[in-house]
Amino acid sequence: MIHIGIFIFDGVEELDFVGPYEVFTMINEVCNYQGKPDGVDVRLISQDGKQVTCTKKMRVLTDGAISDTIDWDVILMPGGEGTRPLLDNEAVLKWLQLQAKNAKWVTSVCTGSMVLAKAGLTTGKKITTHHLNFEKFRQRELPGELVSGVRYVCDGNLITAAGVSAGIDMALWLTGQMFSPTMARSVQSAMQYDPDPPYANLKEN
Amino acid sequence: MIHIGIFIFDGVEELDFVGPYEVFTMINEVCNYQGKPDGVDVRLISQDGKQVTCTKKMRVLTDGAISDTIDWDVILMPGGEGTRPLLDNEAVLKWLQLQAKNAKWVTSVCTGSMVLAKAGLTTGKKITTHHLNFEKFRQRELPGELVSGVRYVCDGNLITAAGVSAGIDMALWLTGQMFSPTMARSVQSAMQYDPDPPYANLKEN
Repeated sequence: MIHIGIFIFDGVEELDFVGPYEVFTMINEVCNYQGKPDGVDVRLISQDGKQVTCTKKMRVLTDGAISDTIDWDVILMPGGEGTRPLLDNEAVLKWLQLQAKNAKWVTSVCTGSMVLAKAGLTTGKKITTHHLNFEKFRQRELPGELVSGVRYVCDGNLITAAGVSAGIDMALWLTGQMFSPTMARSVQSAMQYDPDPPYANLKEN
Repeated sequence: MIHIGIFIFDGVEELDFVGPYEVFTMINEVCNYQGKPDGVDVRLISQDGKQVTCTKKMRVLTDGAISDTIDWDVILMPGGEGTRPLLDNEAVLKWLQLQAKNAKWVTSVCTGSMVLAKAGLTTGKKITTHHLNFEKFRQRELPGELVSGVRYVCDGNLITAAGVSAGIDMALWLTGQMFSPTMARSVQSAMQYDPDPPYANLKEN
């Protein structure tokens, strides 16, 4: 059983965490369909365990506080407007540092990489963030070597995804690493993730 | 101001509704960035206005009940395991029929099209559903001409999307119809939706 802790907070961007949440929880649906027990334990955790109001005002309950949760095999830090106050939140930064010591994978989506950076987890590492956040990242003089034009970057056990929807691709890739590419494709099929943006890909613009 | 009502219920699939929610609410972020007022009012509504527990156990608060909500310009019915009980829920089916009379767009994601079908809104129409749900749809002898191999189908003002993640593509396409392709591309950019499934596209499998 792989324990995956997704940290959420006021001002978290909705799809940043629900995309990976859908991918990771679908692993269990595939396992159960194959007559196997759950492969992952996925939980939404906030600093105090109380509900959070996301950037776009969706309100979500959590499964626990950082103080009463276990050691996570995977931690995921999403992005959103609410990452800015987190950069000065010593309790959360310390929790991230502690978790990162034993976690198999430390991951972020979008501006979540700024929080990992502020916690000192990106020093000397290749990382990425939302494509419109590169300048702000640099202005804050946060550590890490920013890579553009990618969906996600893996450097050691640190995986940082680009903006919002990129968390889905990152979580699928990680599913392939933690289980197998076959499992990742089964999850992809269950999500019918055969994306086709209707007005041309961004790269074509 | 376009009023978009997303119906959620116990057993709704998380990404089915959060994908379109992210797309639609991002319209306002683009509007505000351009110095314009909000273009949409997006709300999550449930039958009784109480919180719902999704298929994968995420718990979400709602913005209202079907009884106290306005006439929607767009209604969206997501899918998930919880659609099965909805097929026998007369109150919800009647509400859908009433809303569909005046709505500019009637939409669904995944198995949500079964609920629209049970409400009689798909008769004689081209529709789609999750790629693993075609047989079940037919077994229930629900009306509608199922189309496979597509992300979504538009027939008149009815738009039905394929499984789970297809709701994102459908919502982006609808954004282009309601506003403009330029707006849809701005939303796509804000979501950094330049998808790249890591272990090959489903169509290539």
